[in-house]
Amino acid sequence: MKAVNIGVIGLGTVGAGTVDLLHRNQEEITRRAGREIKVTCAAVRDLSRGRHCDTAGITLTTDPNEIVSDPSIDVVVELIGGCEVAFDLVTAALAQGKHVVTANKALIATRGNEIFEQASTAGLVVAFEAAVAGGIPVIKILREGLSGNRVEKLIGILNGTCNFILSEMQEKDADYAEVLTQAQQAGYAEADPYFDVEGVDAAHKLTILASIAYGVHLNFQSVYVEGISALTRDDIIFAQEMGYRIKHLGMARRSTTGLDLRVHPCLIAEDHLLANVTGVMNAVVVEGDAVGETLYYGAGAGAQPTASAVVADLIDVVRTLTADPGNRVPHLAFQASALAKPGIIPLAEVYCAHYLRLTVQDQPGVLADITKILGGHGVSIKAIHQHGTGDEDGKVPVVIVTHVAQEAAVAAAVSGIEALPASAHPVVRIRLETLEGH
Amino acid sequence: MKAVNIGVIGLGTVGAGTVDLLHRNQEEITRRAGREIKVTCAAVRDLSRGRHCDTAGITLTTDPNEIVSDPSIDVVVELIGGCEVAFDLVTAALAQGKHVVTANKALIATRGNEIFEQASTAGLVVAFEAAVAGGIPVIKILREGLSGNRVEKLIGILNGTCNFILSEMQEKDADYAEVLTQAQQAGYAEADPYFDVEGVDAAHKLTILASIAYGVHLNFQSVYVEGISALTRDDIIFAQEMGYRIKHLGMARRSTTGLDLRVHPCLIAEDHLLANVTGVMNAVVVEGDAVGETLYYGAGAGAQPTASAVVADLIDVVRTLTADPGNRVPHLAFQASALAKPGIIPLAEVYCAHYLRLTVQDQPGVLADITKILGGHGVSIKAIHQHGTGDEDGKVPVVIVTHVAQEAAVAAAVSGIEALPASAHPVVRIRLETLEGH
Repeated sequence: MKAVNIGVIGLGTVGAGTVDLLHRNQEEITRRAGREIKVTCAAVRDLSRGRHCDTAGITLTTDPNEIVSDPSIDVVVELIGGCEVAFDLVTAALAQGKHVVTANKALIATRGNEIFEQASTAGLVVAFEAAVAGGIPVIKILREGLSGNRVEKLIGILNGTCNFILSEMQEKDADYAEVLTQAQQAGYAEADPYFDVEGVDAAHKLTILASIAYGVHLNFQSVYVEGISALTRDDIIFAQEMGYRIKHLGMARRSTTGLDLRVHPCLIAEDHLLANVTGVMNAVVVEGDAVGETLYYGAGAGAQPTASAVVADLIDVVRTLTADPGNRVPHLAFQASALAKPGIIPLAEVYCAHYLRLTVQDQPGVLADITKILGGHGVSIKAIHQHGTGDEDGKVPVVIVTHVAQEAAVAAAVSGIEALPASAHPVVRIRLETLEGH
Repeated sequence: MKAVNIGVIGLGTVGAGTVDLLHRNQEEITRRAGREIKVTCAAVRDLSRGRHCDTAGITLTTDPNEIVSDPSIDVVVELIGGCEVAFDLVTAALAQGKHVVTANKALIATRGNEIFEQASTAGLVVAFEAAVAGGIPVIKILREGLSGNRVEKLIGILNGTCNFILSEMQEKDADYAEVLTQAQQAGYAEADPYFDVEGVDAAHKLTILASIAYGVHLNFQSVYVEGISALTRDDIIFAQEMGYRIKHLGMARRSTTGLDLRVHPCLIAEDHLLANVTGVMNAVVVEGDAVGETLYYGAGAGAQPTASAVVADLIDVVRTLTADPGNRVPHLAFQASALAKPGIIPLAEVYCAHYLRLTVQDQPGVLADITKILGGHGVSIKAIHQHGTGDEDGKVPVVIVTHVAQEAAVAAAVSGIEALPASAHPVVRIRLETLEGH
């Protein structure tokens, strides 16, 4: 059978990893796909730079449009990231009748609806397994492996940088800023860490997973997003003392009133499988009505794990080349005409348990005032811990774990507590997820 | 689009679960598959018995051949188990031009090569996701999600009954026989537990996974199989004291000399993710050269988790109805013409660390004799623990953990130790797997 010709746009970390993997496992890949998958050209920014892969037999160009318009190319692999140029190139490739494979989570999360519509109209496939959780084939798992289920919830450690920083803060009893610097030096965090540590990257990924799990359009703007940059060493220690770990999670749940889509730090029980996912690893828990709770774990980033997903997509695309487009797996798991439009539950209406860290003057009656305010807003208390006996100014940290309560009630109670004369600092507030079961 | 008509053979636990799931999630399944998937008839053993599913609109028959030969049926779902009758029915369905979905691990592991050859010749699909690890879509993960990788190793907790018994022995400090009886009462073990506790079921599943991971024919006879019925409470406690858990694992590894395929109890470090998979749950670790170590966790049995896999297969089969057969995912992941024929490494040549429990007379010089024998066979010692100070006869248990050594050398050393006059009982020998990193 004729080889399938691939054009790769971008030979950075993932691009070079992809070329390398296709080359290294060429024989096994051909045995699986039934035909050769061959990178014939690649677009790079600078022809004179060294590469992390063998480019023998690959025509290099600095103009990605040459790849997009080359009639000998069957599939375009977009690996430059970003939304502007990538969007133009992907849509141009589709306009030229080419299938597309991409690892670009920002592009899919924010422009995927337009891209998939164009692709479907043209009978083409846009594959994006590499956009979420690196080498863990979680898109395939959700879209095909669990296709008989109603997904009840989906909870993931979706950003390796956040998970690495939180693991290190815990293990080394270190502060956020200190660990971030180390992570940057070790290459686990970008020079500008904003997208990772503020939760934007995890929100892109959650957007994609939620869309596939629930059969809704991509809806990035509806996700509530909070990062990890405000977490302190104290909170990690206090949580640990009570049998919890703090993890940065992306969560999607379905209820009768709509979808609950959130990305933020969470306390979770230390014996939950997710609590033991450390370092740069990713993991996703999917609970389906038939399958129950399942978990998928692996490296969420890096040249080779991401290349693993890109190559799996390439093999899938090659297999669909002769399939009737109407019978292919839909981009968002459900037929495009059958995507639903559920309401997104506003954060204020979400129910969640909370960890609250207060800093108060250590004086009689303060706890009574605090518990009265919480009770007045219907927020019931599971545990109160006072840590230490106060600093020189007589201030002490008090940690309160609440039972499940509505966000709006907790917010109102927190405002009330902060208005107390004995309250010395803003209340630190981290949600606590039971993850139901375990 | 026209509905796809399904005939189900067997309405037991999984059959009723499948009918129930297709009915309950009909709307979501149709939104995913693009057409209705409809059970139109089912074969049962006894028409007068009650069912665990709604059979309205389903024609019931006691003759499965009616389903196999019914021209209105597009896909036959075989859920009766066993190898003889099931083989005849599956091959008859294929001869009638029908696709087949089955949950029958014994059938696929022992007769799969013949079945897949007949199916491929006829351009038909035999789908068997439900045969391994219940609802965890591990066959799809290996066959498609990780298709760019060379699989280095695959290690799984593949039998929920064994894992439940071992978890309970550990947690309740109970004996094997005691826990087995409880498991039988709770429905977690069959009245005749042989296939589960002696490792045959896990070996069927390992056979299937190894074949897909390495692109080799199904080779059930080559798997080394050991069950859990000889494990004692003492071994579980001693292992725990040294920081290990005993798990019943199926393992497939590739080396330069061939494939190493084994099913047996193993000591593994207590902080490995697999050590924390308890109860009836299943989990599979797959290490690929690109993706690194990944793990997949979920319920390995039960009506609904298994039905989840059957329905996912049905949706897949429906999607392939119009695809060019040459471009479909091959049954064993690799093109049938490209399956390899590697040697299987004989057990005697496998390298493994060991836990050895000796019962010896507590007298001077015994340890010296034992260590000399081990050293003489090139088996080096990592740790020795003497437990207690002997019973009334002066016998004491001595636990030795060895470094990695060849099986044949360990076997010879064990024979030598058993021949010592001070040796009171046969040596208990359990392999210890480092699972290299995690």
